[in-house]
Amino acid sequence: MKIALDAMGGDFSPQNPVAGAVQALRDFPDVEIVFVGDESRVRSELLKHPTAGLEPRISFHQASQVVDMSDNGLDSVRRKKDSSVSRAVDLVKNGEADAVVSAGHTGALVAAATIKLRTLPGIDRAGLGVLIPAEGGVFLLIDGGANIDPAPEHIVGFAVMGSVYYRAIFGEARARVGLLNIGSEPGKGTEFCVECHQLLGSAPIDFVGNIEGHGIFKKPAEVVVTDGFTGNIFLKSIEGLAKSMVGWIKDELRRNPLRMLGALLSKGAFTAVKNRTSTDEYGGTPLLGVNGICIKAHGNSSPRALRNAIRAARSAVEAQINTRIVEAMQPRHEKTDSRHPATA
Amino acid sequence: MKIALDAMGGDFSPQNPVAGAVQALRDFPDVEIVFVGDESRVRSELLKHPTAGLEPRISFHQASQVVDMSDNGLDSVRRKKDSSVSRAVDLVKNGEADAVVSAGHTGALVAAATIKLRTLPGIDRAGLGVLIPAEGGVFLLIDGGANIDPAPEHIVGFAVMGSVYYRAIFGEARARVGLLNIGSEPGKGTEFCVECHQLLGSAPIDFVGNIEGHGIFKKPAEVVVTDGFTGNIFLKSIEGLAKSMVGWIKDELRRNPLRMLGALLSKGAFTAVKNRTSTDEYGGTPLLGVNGICIKAHGNSSPRALRNAIRAARSAVEAQINTRIVEAMQPRHEKTDSRHPATA
Repeated sequence: MKIALDAMGGDFSPQNPVAGAVQALRDFPDVEIVFVGDESRVRSELLKHPTAGLEPRISFHQASQVVDMSDNGLDSVRRKKDSSVSRAVDLVKNGEADAVVSAGHTGALVAAATIKLRTLPGIDRAGLGVLIPAEGGVFLLIDGGANIDPAPEHIVGFAVMGSVYYRAIFGEARARVGLLNIGSEPGKGTEFCVECHQLLGSAPIDFVGNIEGHGIFKKPAEVVVTDGFTGNIFLKSIEGLAKSMVGWIKDELRRNPLRMLGALLSKGAFTAVKNRTSTDEYGGTPLLGVNGICIKAHGNSSPRALRNAIRAARSAVEAQINTRIVEAMQPRHEKTDSRHPATA
Repeated sequence: MKIALDAMGGDFSPQNPVAGAVQALRDFPDVEIVFVGDESRVRSELLKHPTAGLEPRISFHQASQVVDMSDNGLDSVRRKKDSSVSRAVDLVKNGEADAVVSAGHTGALVAAATIKLRTLPGIDRAGLGVLIPAEGGVFLLIDGGANIDPAPEHIVGFAVMGSVYYRAIFGEARARVGLLNIGSEPGKGTEFCVECHQLLGSAPIDFVGNIEGHGIFKKPAEVVVTDGFTGNIFLKSIEGLAKSMVGWIKDELRRNPLRMLGALLSKGAFTAVKNRTSTDEYGGTPLLGVNGICIKAHGNSSPRALRNAIRAARSAVEAQINTRIVEAMQPRHEKTDSRHPATA
């Protein structure tokens, strides 16, 4: 399978996308990579890696522009038509690649994918499905920030897509769905939350009700749905706290020699927790709902995180995620249509 | 000064409120406590503590009902007129106490305080101002959940009140104010965020723009404003993550004897971080904007957290917080009035 990689996206490009791709090519023999971006820069970056035997699975697609953080996502699609992210999405649109992976500007990827690939039948809004470490595994939060002002109906779409993705990727039969809210009872939260709760209750999913931040890391559900604004606040806040806590612990450990010795002896424990909470291992957030496989990697992705984002793309293609989402939405989609027979 | 303590509020009542009050009475000789609730239960709880010399500063106010977690906050004010929290607020309303402290049902306290005490001149909505540990100090998040659906204008009130409170309590001249958002640029976020950003820019505060969860624990601002829904999601999520992270580290440290030894040697570091992130030390969240001092303690408050909530009430009374808030709102209030001269 062929994966279009935005070689210019992310804080450390093209070096990290290139290094991650080389790792992925080595680990996954069925994967081919199309590097999208400044070909000469990518080629000179590739020279730093041993690529003997990998060449037949490497190709290039020139793109002269890069979307940077000061660009507006939506505008970038129109103004920077030759950007690496837009061109990478084009390859999927034209059937020249099976998936796109980018560590670049989230808004630009979401806009390019939504405009060029369009949404799947039955889906009006795409959502970013972010895997988050919790006790006894990971859960999927959707939407992580693709749509900051969705309607309750769109949240139902997120729930169905999240369930399909979680079950497919982890091979599990069941995916409980919870609604991120400020109280556990059905009537809690904003009007929007109350409407979402009602719709989710009658949707073809395993809905377990509202979930609060207090208990979310005990994994009461495999899928947690929310609007993209709240989801993005949630993600960035827990990421900020995790980093600060690690920093505070390090500061305290450096305060005296005894503590430093202790830290040395117990270092393995911290490495384990760091790996557990690292976004690297779960690198690769699917933009669910667009008509094509589209994986967003974190802006500061390491080579390993990018390798894992490519792995996520590969898994999504293999699992035929979009066919499954369309099937899962089908009954709902038809039901919705039949509600308005006069319109037909 | 006299503080009305809801003796029946919180997960461990009346034992923790009583134990916390005894500590406070010992530490703050100018404080008198009125225990509001089941007098006989409070009296038998008091027998467990050495209270010699403290008696002249202890009094009781009978209340026969308790608001429990299954109650609706607003309904509880009407249906449980003789609840400990309602009666404690009544004491402030009638001038029989200078402040109220409760570890009970947040919604019930907010509703009782808003209905009985009403809001201050110039303030339409009260907000919970929660102190959160960060690098190099604490910041105040407002609103932590008193009003889940405020208008942008109310956010300006939160900003002014938060600034006044922060400066008064920490004796600082400056309090930078940030808006919790999903991007740093002024146009980022929902329509609500964009409007808030505009209004905050022209408000009589030290506005520093949008703040994202990524960087919030580096303390780019002393006061962070947001709506009560987002604020409550933020608070509970970081609390949930902090607890889970501590749990994960403990699990990993128990995995082998070397790590356990290391943990023992470096224990002080963890205790320091635990204390730093503990809500106990910052116990006591003011409900800012109501016409009376009203402090909410966490539902699972320890005696120390309740002692600190009483300390927070004492500081707020001493600092004449509400007089200062009214003064700070005055120019704005008058300006708003003068916009509609025809109405006068």
